[in-house]
Amino acid sequence: MSQNDYFYEYFNVTFPEEYVAHVEINRPEKLNAFIEKMWLNLSLIFTRLSTDPAVRTILLTGAGPRAFTAGLDVQAASQSGILAPSPTPLDPARKAFLSIAHIQEFQTCISAVERCAKPVIVVLHGISYGLAVDLSTAADIRLATKDTQFSVKEVDIGLAADIGTLTRLPKSVGSMSWIKDVTLSARVFGAEEAAAQGLVSGVYATKEEAIAAGLEKARLIASKSPVAVLGTKELVNWSRDRPTEDGLRYTAVWNSAMLQTDDIKDALMSGLKKTKPKFSKL
Amino acid sequence: MSQNDYFYEYFNVTFPEEYVAHVEINRPEKLNAFIEKMWLNLSLIFTRLSTDPAVRTILLTGAGPRAFTAGLDVQAASQSGILAPSPTPLDPARKAFLSIAHIQEFQTCISAVERCAKPVIVVLHGISYGLAVDLSTAADIRLATKDTQFSVKEVDIGLAADIGTLTRLPKSVGSMSWIKDVTLSARVFGAEEAAAQGLVSGVYATKEEAIAAGLEKARLIASKSPVAVLGTKELVNWSRDRPTEDGLRYTAVWNSAMLQTDDIKDALMSGLKKTKPKFSKL
Amino acid sequence: MSQNDYFYEYFNVTFPEEYVAHVEINRPEKLNAFIEKMWLNLSLIFTRLSTDPAVRTILLTGAGPRAFTAGLDVQAASQSGILAPSPTPLDPARKAFLSIAHIQEFQTCISAVERCAKPVIVVLHGISYGLAVDLSTAADIRLATKDTQFSVKEVDIGLAADIGTLTRLPKSVGSMSWIKDVTLSARVFGAEEAAAQGLVSGVYATKEEAIAAGLEKARLIASKSPVAVLGTKELVNWSRDRPTEDGLRYTAVWNSAMLQTDDIKDALMSGLKKTKPKFSKL
Amino acid sequence: MSQNDYFYEYFNVTFPEEYVAHVEINRPEKLNAFIEKMWLNLSLIFTRLSTDPAVRTILLTGAGPRAFTAGLDVQAASQSGILAPSPTPLDPARKAFLSIAHIQEFQTCISAVERCAKPVIVVLHGISYGLAVDLSTAADIRLATKDTQFSVKEVDIGLAADIGTLTRLPKSVGSMSWIKDVTLSARVFGAEEAAAQGLVSGVYATKEEAIAAGLEKARLIASKSPVAVLGTKELVNWSRDRPTEDGLRYTAVWNSAMLQTDDIKDALMSGLKKTKPKFSKL
Amino acid sequence: MSQNDYFYEYFNVTFPEEYVAHVEINRPEKLNAFIEKMWLNLSLIFTRLSTDPAVRTILLTGAGPRAFTAGLDVQAASQSGILAPSPTPLDPARKAFLSIAHIQEFQTCISAVERCAKPVIVVLHGISYGLAVDLSTAADIRLATKDTQFSVKEVDIGLAADIGTLTRLPKSVGSMSWIKDVTLSARVFGAEEAAAQGLVSGVYATKEEAIAAGLEKARLIASKSPVAVLGTKELVNWSRDRPTEDGLRYTAVWNSAMLQTDDIKDALMSGLKKTKPKFSKL
Amino acid sequence: MSQNDYFYEYFNVTFPEEYVAHVEINRPEKLNAFIEKMWLNLSLIFTRLSTDPAVRTILLTGAGPRAFTAGLDVQAASQSGILAPSPTPLDPARKAFLSIAHIQEFQTCISAVERCAKPVIVVLHGISYGLAVDLSTAADIRLATKDTQFSVKEVDIGLAADIGTLTRLPKSVGSMSWIKDVTLSARVFGAEEAAAQGLVSGVYATKEEAIAAGLEKARLIASKSPVAVLGTKELVNWSRDRPTEDGLRYTAVWNSAMLQTDDIKDALMSGLKKTKPKFSKL
Repeated sequence: MSQNDYFYEYFNVTFPEEYVAHVEINRPEKLNAFIEKMWLNLSLIFTRLSTDPAVRTILLTGAGPRAFTAGLDVQAASQSGILAPSPTPLDPARKAFLSIAHIQEFQTCISAVERCAKPVIVVLHGISYGLAVDLSTAADIRLATKDTQFSVKEVDIGLAADIGTLTRLPKSVGSMSWIKDVTLSARVFGAEEAAAQGLVSGVYATKEEAIAAGLEKARLIASKSPVAVLGTKELVNWSRDRPTEDGLRYTAVWNSAMLQTDDIKDALMSGLKKTKPKFSKL
Repeated sequence: MSQNDYFYEYFNVTFPEEYVAHVEINRPEKLNAFIEKMWLNLSLIFTRLSTDPAVRTILLTGAGPRAFTAGLDVQAASQSGILAPSPTPLDPARKAFLSIAHIQEFQTCISAVERCAKPVIVVLHGISYGLAVDLSTAADIRLATKDTQFSVKEVDIGLAADIGTLTRLPKSVGSMSWIKDVTLSARVFGAEEAAAQGLVSGVYATKEEAIAAGLEKARLIASKSPVAVLGTKELVNWSRDRPTEDGLRYTAVWNSAMLQTDDIKDALMSGLKKTKPKFSKL
Repeated sequence: MSQNDYFYEYFNVTFPEEYVAHVEINRPEKLNAFIEKMWLNLSLIFTRLSTDPAVRTILLTGAGPRAFTAGLDVQAASQSGILAPSPTPLDPARKAFLSIAHIQEFQTCISAVERCAKPVIVVLHGISYGLAVDLSTAADIRLATKDTQFSVKEVDIGLAADIGTLTRLPKSVGSMSWIKDVTLSARVFGAEEAAAQGLVSGVYATKEEAIAAGLEKARLIASKSPVAVLGTKELVNWSRDRPTEDGLRYTAVWNSAMLQTDDIKDALMSGLKKTKPKFSKL
Repeated sequence: MSQNDYFYEYFNVTFPEEYVAHVEINRPEKLNAFIEKMWLNLSLIFTRLSTDPAVRTILLTGAGPRAFTAGLDVQAASQSGILAPSPTPLDPARKAFLSIAHIQEFQTCISAVERCAKPVIVVLHGISYGLAVDLSTAADIRLATKDTQFSVKEVDIGLAADIGTLTRLPKSVGSMSWIKDVTLSARVFGAEEAAAQGLVSGVYATKEEAIAAGLEKARLIASKSPVAVLGTKELVNWSRDRPTEDGLRYTAVWNSAMLQTDDIKDALMSGLKKTKPKFSKL
Repeated sequence: MSQNDYFYEYFNVTFPEEYVAHVEINRPEKLNAFIEKMWLNLSLIFTRLSTDPAVRTILLTGAGPRAFTAGLDVQAASQSGILAPSPTPLDPARKAFLSIAHIQEFQTCISAVERCAKPVIVVLHGISYGLAVDLSTAADIRLATKDTQFSVKEVDIGLAADIGTLTRLPKSVGSMSWIKDVTLSARVFGAEEAAAQGLVSGVYATKEEAIAAGLEKARLIASKSPVAVLGTKELVNWSRDRPTEDGLRYTAVWNSAMLQTDDIKDALMSGLKKTKPKFSKL
Repeated sequence: MSQNDYFYEYFNVTFPEEYVAHVEINRPEKLNAFIEKMWLNLSLIFTRLSTDPAVRTILLTGAGPRAFTAGLDVQAASQSGILAPSPTPLDPARKAFLSIAHIQEFQTCISAVERCAKPVIVVLHGISYGLAVDLSTAADIRLATKDTQFSVKEVDIGLAADIGTLTRLPKSVGSMSWIKDVTLSARVFGAEEAAAQGLVSGVYATKEEAIAAGLEKARLIASKSPVAVLGTKELVNWSRDRPTEDGLRYTAVWNSAMLQTDDIKDALMSGLKKTKPKFSKL
């Protein structure tokens, strides 16, 4: 596929390097706040990149100088979206049925980033509230600019975050005391604190530097065997959620096919010849 | 309920702010060491606070300058408590039956802090041995004074900690090497080390400052929508222990009722009006 | 058993202190790279130490100045080992069957370190690639010299790490972003970074100092009640992989027998008498 | 304890044989329909029997000729109980909070039968609707008279059964098609069908015969080693809910204490001497 | 929606009764064997029925006198479908990646029957091989004609069934010995045997009688509160796969919203008035 | 390998058909009661058969007319085996450590039947007590003669069965009431009852007929694609113990390699040509 195939409203998708895709959230005039169309498109993009043989790693960023994303566009959601009153009178049970369906749809869209077979490197900057945390914890590697302002903002609008943050934060950083602190208080925290807690693994002075670093990391990973890289993402994610025995067993079964790749021979040969290996497409 | 309803021996329960309860372990002449009556009362207090509509966050501290708690009162336990020889001769299987029942009772008392629907902020200071770690890992947010001396002390009296520490430490901090180090060696470690490892998320110069900070945090959280706050505690705790899919699913079902709260409307309206929202009681 | 019973090719097993075993990987001329005989012997050694009543803690190190281990001996594996082409033509399914069996055998050998009932303290130094991470995450406490070079090297030879690293890293450190970074990029990282992320819990200037520190820690743990120490390892490992409720329940059942040890009485008595307790053999 | 200690309204508790307790639901004029006081008392009774050393097995039946129990007393529940409208106006989220607490309390009461360490044999007869199924699936052995009319009645009053039936039926019988059939249709089914599906394991012509058979079974089990019997209940229940590996491991740890019982020696000796063994109290 | 909205090739979708949909697999000239288009359409149909407020139960049958379905159309699959050789040469690892994606897509289509919120009653007749078992174990209630010939046919074409049968059979019937017998031998078994093992819960003389019975059951369930019915399907399915504690907890949270339905009041009122309740749409 | 390689005391291993092994427990003068040497040998045999390319199915029977096995040789176990008093005085905790190790060793031996990659068909006859049930529930298909006397005998010697029965019975048959009945009462039950409950899936008049039927079944399964057969055993066993989602996922990954077998082509071709396929060795 080529760049021309990736026209999705509110997103720029480019291919700055061989095997590297760059997805930019593009609604800067609204601080990249999300309306329904955006999470649907996000899901379409990542589902497609997941099987695009021309793509091996993905960089995810936000357009404009001020925000990665300010989160849910609450105003829009209150008028016609998921926070809007239902038009027809329904009893609370019937509202709940609709609500479960809506939340699961929304979760499934955000989870497209995690389901995507290729590693996703996210670069956060500026305002990174609410959905910014849901979204970035579904990614694989998190980088940030030093001016990033994070907040698990949902309690401030009267709800417990339900699109991924409360589920994935305990699987993304180690300190449960800190997780409870930031999720219960909705307080804003900066990039240094995020790095100290392990939420991000790199902090950069400017957005340009952060994107350059993200791109460099994406390029590096894209130069490796795609069989090895995709397996690594899959096996870490599976093991994270299951007992050690099940992690090891699934790993053995997974690799029973994957070790039959030509990439191993190619990699070993390149190692001997001191050349850079070229791996065939997936 | 009022303060008058909360008379429990060895504990002071006060209400320093609207919606904030302060539970103080009060046996300072024995370094707040626990005898059986204390864990029974602890459980009664937190079970009651859990459904008290006048309470939205809870601060847990230890009385006196020297210790949050020195842990189990080993002397008392050896004489008449859970470490005492059984009065009638029993075979080891029958002793084991009694023992399982006793340990589970004790665990259930400490777990009352985790089961409590409201967030619990614990401030540790001075000697914080054994049960101090069991107890504080069952709380949500851990703060400490810089003179706090932590120790998972149990191996020094010949037993593996069985009231919660060995189960909850791997779910509270990230470094397994450090967890094994402190649980196997029973060595004392300080507040800075605890903070570096993520066990506590704030260190303060004095007990007064730490309690003030804890109280400030409690007040902040108590000012938020209680529906949002209680859901956040519940959903983080559930997700911590289960695969991502089960975390997301439970979250969707939970919020199917909780999104029908008036708190969202109240919070959004206050946001527009720049006023402080008032949320009704639970 | 005595030292004489522990002759295993490529390993030195010594007993530098009462109750402390020291296992040294001994193929320094090949940077301690592993061939099949080595992981088989490793498993035999740790399985035996696990029930040797003369052993209470184990130190694991690598011989020579340059490497803890450079990982799999890729050259040997390509010629006659697990990366070698199969001699008879087999369809991919039949190769996969053999492969599952081989990977599980290899995993089982490395997991012998985790299954070993006694705590294992590993000291890493110099080159610590691939299998070094698989092996050390199966141990309990990780220490390193400041010149240690870690790398989850497997993607560089075209495969996802399958002997334990991808399963155990998410259970060993807190930052998922960092885990993905090092496992996807295969980049080398140093001891300070490993310590900051919680992978190791001590960094020392030289190999001598690191081994001295490891030995000191081993001696300290070996001086404690073995009933308490072995239970602590078991209960932390079980709880790490399971929900809190299952962790607490298993703990109660485990301790129903273990609290009937004489070690508690001995420990308490020594505490009163200010003497050092002596615990009987397991 | 003696019979005098077991006065609980709506229940008759008697001790027809050594080590056998008989709990009879006693509100026959209302077809033994349950009001809140009854499930609270049920829980108190089984919690107490669980640790009463004079009790080794328990028979559970319903008074009167017409019904084991007709289930929840819907009329009472609609007026002042869990189906009653809440007196103060609450938003649906706040109602949901109260509801979760109420359902969990009710579930916990019924689960007291399962948590009870001693085996519970239930004899159903006549009308056995709704709560009758919740209650009997929490018991260990189910017997019925041939006139028993079972029904998972809840959908007929507009709700999914939430006190245990929908959770425990899939763990009590094998045919999922049949489970869905009876839970979705609320149709009445008889004892022969229940026996064919494995829900009950004995069908008797009259209530007298059924109770006699239940009592005979209770007496038989009560004559066995209580260590063996209680362990058997515990280990089957644990294993039912967990993977085979976790079942085996827990079993090994459980028996590490329980095999140290004198009962084994007593049982073996009686076997040799052809006498009936007497086992000491728990 | 109306019948006009449900035109999907190879399927007839009709609405024989209020709230009842009838889905007929319609490729009788090929014994209703499945080609790719069919499972894609099956998924679209059930996904749509799941949220169609005019539908409360679904009947699933096969057109023609000879077969419910003969399973996968092996000939078509060998030529251009999932058993076809890949057109471009790929190493076994790359083939495996494609294969995982294909199998998961196929599984997801069949699982649409299980994910469908409304109960699905399947009526099997005649040849019911391979996919017939995958498909019917994803449904809720299974009925059959007495001439039904079942077979888990996959081993006869050289593969382990991978679209659901091997996963769902152990959750559908009780006898593991029987499951292994039929899945390992691929032998044909009849309706009486299926009924005796609990795989089907009704056997009828002719297809007409079976469909009439299925329709009667569908009508009965459709007459109940849809809130109660949908919750019952959801809670049984969730509990089947998880420990009792998690089943009970999820049930309490689910019902916290669902008990706020007007259906309970409507059902109770109808009960008093001896009228047939009418429940509003979902 | 040939028959000559399978000399193990107390067992006869023969190869009555191509690809079929017959393992006979051979201590008929003691009713095939097990001593330690026997379970060690059993494990060695099944571990070896698991990877023997000349074997595709295994028949397991007991020698002599009177018993499949009477279970543990209690007399031997009391004198020098696992029920014997420990020679050196140990505190109960230390005894418990040894006990856990012994039980796990014993469990691991019996589980060798389940771990064996090839399907195991067991034919029970005559006395089949205790270990007979542990052993046969670890097998895949259970057949019996009509004179078989089953008993979960362990409670009669004062212990809860700990080698597999209590864990695997709830995963082998559907009726929990029946499981509790037979495990708590230790009563003897016959083959018809075992068949009605689904424990066995075939009952035969004589031992000869039963063995002939078992052999016929073994031959039939051995004639199928070994890739398909081994996968079927693996995937049913994995799915039995895990949620549906994990069952489906593991299945997809497993088959990603296994679908690349030549067996599919061979099976399809034979189907077209109406010949009997020959599959190459594993």
